[in-house]
Amino acid sequence: MPNMKLEEALEILERTPRALEAMLAGLSAGWLQCREGEGTWNAPEVVGHLIESEHTNWLPRLVSMLGDGEVKPLPPFDRFAHLSQAERPLETMLEEFRAIRTRNIAAVRELVDPERDFDRTGQHPSFGTVKVRELLSTWAVHDLTHMSQIMRVMAERYREDVGPWSAFLGILRRT
Amino acid sequence: MPNMKLEEALEILERTPRALEAMLAGLSAGWLQCREGEGTWNAPEVVGHLIESEHTNWLPRLVSMLGDGEVKPLPPFDRFAHLSQAERPLETMLEEFRAIRTRNIAAVRELVDPERDFDRTGQHPSFGTVKVRELLSTWAVHDLTHMSQIMRVMAERYREDVGPWSAFLGILRRT
Repeated sequence: MPNMKLEEALEILERTPRALEAMLAGLSAGWLQCREGEGTWNAPEVVGHLIESEHTNWLPRLVSMLGDGEVKPLPPFDRFAHLSQAERPLETMLEEFRAIRTRNIAAVRELVDPERDFDRTGQHPSFGTVKVRELLSTWAVHDLTHMSQIMRVMAERYREDVGPWSAFLGILRRT
Repeated sequence: MPNMKLEEALEILERTPRALEAMLAGLSAGWLQCREGEGTWNAPEVVGHLIESEHTNWLPRLVSMLGDGEVKPLPPFDRFAHLSQAERPLETMLEEFRAIRTRNIAAVRELVDPERDFDRTGQHPSFGTVKVRELLSTWAVHDLTHMSQIMRVMAERYREDVGPWSAFLGILRRT
């Protein structure tokens, strides 16, 4: 059963930048540099991906769906683009994320009328037909999945240190 | 290889209350009441468990290890105690958590000298011998596992809404 209400999805989108700031700003390098293994992302790289997604994924695709529907395919999104960008301090990235997220939420409020637009569609490069309501729901869950990833990446650092308690710590269960 | 440094573990413990506030304060009831199924916890119940852990788990056990070592077993901890407590507004709980966490961090700084104390031990009711360094590492990872749980619980709410994007959202993979 579809559940999503625009204002509720925006509640998540509004909170993520502040939650990431509260969690990550000022952490020492050990926490910020740790990974789950080669080819996986550390916390600042996850933030970089969230920023890139604001620029080239969610809003441009929403605009395409509202403007062109399925006439044109949705603009492509490179999930690894952030890895080839110049490194910048985490605090700069967190501010950048907050700023663009704020602008994008304002744009969504401006552009989307749930009654009129939720069932409008676009052509996703992998999935075929997708709906505006699905894109907006995914945007919120994408925040949650990446915040959860950051917790998991940082927890990994103490895998050995927790000793026998690892049995009680679901986050250390490898999937 | 043990990694844990006291001040780094405390960085996580210090941030969790603010991160939870940033993420949860003011969310609408739909987000706060959703669960992964019967017998699982919603976000305020997870916060209740974190508060209860501050009162009766981490610090009392640390004090027992430092005072009695393995002469007495560690005090018991009821992981479900918070479920039988009077309900109170989430904002009250978040303040309560922040206050007791601040006091407990001050107590850890007062009580623990890493050089002297990290290898001191206690008798855990399930695991047998555990070390101070393991308890402190677990305290931090316990924060991360429960923050990650809150993200997962909230993501569950949009499982249907995201449509085909669920394929790209690791958080919706059931373990």
